[in-house]
Amino acid sequence: ALVTTGQVALGVIPGDGIGPEVTAEALKVLEAAAPADLKFAPTQYDLGAERYLRTGEVLPDSVLEEIRGQDALLLGAVGGKPNDPNLPPGILERGLLLKLRFALDHYVNLRPSRIYPGSVSPLSDEVLAKGEVDFVVVREGTEGPYTGNGGALRVGTPAEVATEVSVNTAYGVERVVRDAFERARRRPRKKLTLVHKTNVLVHAGQVWWRLFQEVGAEYPDVTTDYCHIDAVMIFLATDPQRFDVIVTDNLFGDIVTDLAAAISGGIGLAASGNVNPDRTAPSMFEPVHGSAPDIAGQLIADPTAAILSGALLLDHLGHPEAAARIEAAVLADLEARDPAQRRRTPEVGDAIAARVAG
Amino acid sequence: ALVTTGQVALGVIPGDGIGPEVTAEALKVLEAAAPADLKFAPTQYDLGAERYLRTGEVLPDSVLEEIRGQDALLLGAVGGKPNDPNLPPGILERGLLLKLRFALDHYVNLRPSRIYPGSVSPLSDEVLAKGEVDFVVVREGTEGPYTGNGGALRVGTPAEVATEVSVNTAYGVERVVRDAFERARRRPRKKLTLVHKTNVLVHAGQVWWRLFQEVGAEYPDVTTDYCHIDAVMIFLATDPQRFDVIVTDNLFGDIVTDLAAAISGGIGLAASGNVNPDRTAPSMFEPVHGSAPDIAGQLIADPTAAILSGALLLDHLGHPEAAARIEAAVLADLEARDPAQRRRTPEVGDAIAARVAG
Ligand SMILES: CC(C)[C@H](C(=O)O)[C@@H](O)C(=O)O
Ligand SMILES: CC(C)[C@H](C(=O)O)[C@@H](O)C(=O)O
Repeated sequence: ALVTTGQVALGVIPGDGIGPEVTAEALKVLEAAAPADLKFAPTQYDLGAERYLRTGEVLPDSVLEEIRGQDALLLGAVGGKPNDPNLPPGILERGLLLKLRFALDHYVNLRPSRIYPGSVSPLSDEVLAKGEVDFVVVREGTEGPYTGNGGALRVGTPAEVATEVSVNTAYGVERVVRDAFERARRRPRKKLTLVHKTNVLVHAGQVWWRLFQEVGAEYPDVTTDYCHIDAVMIFLATDPQRFDVIVTDNLFGDIVTDLAAAISGGIGLAASGNVNPDRTAPSMFEPVHGSAPDIAGQLIADPTAAILSGALLLDHLGHPEAAARIEAAVLADLEARDPAQRRRTPEVGDAIAARVAG
Repeated sequence: ALVTTGQVALGVIPGDGIGPEVTAEALKVLEAAAPADLKFAPTQYDLGAERYLRTGEVLPDSVLEEIRGQDALLLGAVGGKPNDPNLPPGILERGLLLKLRFALDHYVNLRPSRIYPGSVSPLSDEVLAKGEVDFVVVREGTEGPYTGNGGALRVGTPAEVATEVSVNTAYGVERVVRDAFERARRRPRKKLTLVHKTNVLVHAGQVWWRLFQEVGAEYPDVTTDYCHIDAVMIFLATDPQRFDVIVTDNLFGDIVTDLAAAISGGIGLAASGNVNPDRTAPSMFEPVHGSAPDIAGQLIADPTAAILSGALLLDHLGHPEAAARIEAAVLADLEARDPAQRRRTPEVGDAIAARVAG
């Protein structure tokens, strides 16, 4: 829902590891940034690896229904210790993260990439000198190779055949492409790049290509461009400045956004939104990073990505100015950071909250 | 075939644009590097965009059958001018490149990545200072999402549904995984990383994971590791030194190898082999770069990637020492390069051939 004044019913899923630590700071900054007449009413949901290990439950239906009633969701990170034999791989991913995206129709997975001041990009000075890096990936979130379609025959034998089916509908592609055109139109450069592999994945490629052209005809002010997923790898490494908005399918988007986060100085600053633009269910905002069990409990995690996810949340609720205040505060904080001085998680949150309020 | 002495029946597909220019240099260096009792008998095949535009033919069956009779194949690059309306996208990719890989059972697509001296990596000095980058990707070449399986319903309507089916067989996965273990065993670090997305693509993930474990049990001297495709993006950008040999599916391999080529100083040095390890058909060696129509005809293209592809060809035919001589000559040439002095394509070939012979 758009929530202009009054109470925001905010579902908070702190999750595991550093999840609760960074979520607390995101909430602190959200409250500092919100207009005076907007109040957050948080409800915490205990979900993730810990709950699964304790109870065997991943996402009970009753909890999903409660979550559905919220205005927006803030997620920390879920995931247990690597290679925990009691936590089969995929359980939380499919049972919780993807389940929420599909159940709440999060068809736009939004991932902005910027190289912030002071952030350590792995790219060379020569590449960075070409100009500012500032683009956003609009990743489809509800179909493609993520549907679980497919199966296996003669499992465990030398005659095994396993398939994965990427499902692409005009319905699903049209709406995400339209959302991406809308976002491109609102940005100064107004440029949208479709990323796919149309020369090999012809069936899916054809419906993406067609709708990109058809919807694009309604946005003559937006410049369009097409790039194969493999070529995107080269461009992101050597010329990331060329991108403004990228629209792509679920799996290509997963891959592109991790590279985008890496080149823009790491997953520690990457925010994301799982957005339902039609507002038929709450959208969910989360840092791209994981639960980092190795550093959990020490309050040394950087909450910046969670805080920036809060900015996306405010923007989605209809408060772009408040969102911009958070971004500006983060920017100022990053500029003022002294690499020699390591602050604790709440200190970073306090500093950014103070800048937002000031 | 292994060809130890005598004549090598070499099928040469120069292709389009700079293809013929770089192939000529690769052949020059091949001849210089081959042992005295090994002679190349090249047969040229006129295939690619130009032939298609002239005749409407992509790969006539009779040509494919001739090609099948060769000992090995050297390909330049194929592809016409971008957006040529007479050259529908995918025609050459599927009708020629992929058709050859499938018809000749090139189930190992081999792509080594090294940061050579003097090559301009887009990575920062900090990342490069971590150590030498030297890994090879073994990409499956005959199944996965590249089979063309799938289709579309109600095409062109708002109710369109299009699917792409990734096909993974125990037969196909086992043989490429085994090849990768063999290659890892022959390298000093003896480390093999499986790259997939097992937490989402569970059906395919399961057969890859199982065979990686099963075959791995026969190679206790090889250290194994697993990485999701999205995490690989981060590692390639920030810590490429961690990789030795990577084995992965056809589409992930396409994506990973372009990023690998980019970070190791560009597509201009990236060589590749489409290998049939069982030698039931000729293997094909080619630079990763395209036909670069914009610089064709000027003899300014860098033939190094084509020359390095020739080294892979010699290695495959059973001449690892000759292959190593080419690599050493390329290395020496790269070290001696003066960025201020631009050499023409044949000058680079001559210089490397002279070093190989000397
Ligand atoms: C955890 C996993 C299922 C998820 C995905 O693949 O979408 C993650 O990588 C992401 O990008 O949010
Ligand atoms: C041209 C295309 C079909 C091909 C592929 O996707 O395999 C290319 O990108 C490659 O990597 O050799």
